[in-house]
Amino acid sequence: MPHFEKHVFICTNRRDPGNPKGCCAEKGADAIRETFKKELHARGLKGRMRANAAGCLDQCARGPSVVVYPEQVWYTVPTPEDAIEIIEKHLIGGVPVERLRMK
Amino acid sequence: MPHFEKHVFICTNRRDPGNPKGCCAEKGADAIRETFKKELHARGLKGRMRANAAGCLDQCARGPSVVVYPEQVWYTVPTPEDAIEIIEKHLIGGVPVERLRMK
Repeated sequence: MPHFEKHVFICTNRRDPGNPKGCCAEKGADAIRETFKKELHARGLKGRMRANAAGCLDQCARGPSVVVYPEQVWYTVPTPEDAIEIIEKHLIGGVPVERLRMK
Repeated sequence: MPHFEKHVFICTNRRDPGNPKGCCAEKGADAIRETFKKELHARGLKGRMRANAAGCLDQCARGPSVVVYPEQVWYTVPTPEDAIEIIEKHLIGGVPVERLRMK
């Protein structure tokens, strides 16, 4: 059976412009997802950790929404730099980034 | 912070026809995803358990690929009836469905 030490899901859902719910895509989620993917690979973690696009994670107002399994830590990740901080401190270092936790 | 007791990710990735990797979409993944979503709602589990579409889970040959978190149990789910069995026995009953586990 496959096994990932860390499996990161990034909501990349896109709603119609003007939808009152908003969406993660319009807040830059594609760049967040690309950063997670590229930076995990750059650190030699492909196969051990995976960044996946996901449909709506049902936290639209608090996006860009990211959840890290198996520990189910939820994040709001506004910038690619924040994604890198999560990779280094949490995914590699084992300590969740408190300031980015979803409220 | 949000919390789901069970969070089910269903690969719905679609590749070009003829791509040697194949893809979960051409094996009926959209119907599997819809079944998980609809049948969780029908059982009053919306908010406690969630079925999410996901991008490629990197198990293309073994799809339709599904992973259940937080326990990270991987499944190959060929039919909607199999999805219902996973809901009833694993998500609700707590016992993974051995015959459907991804090889």
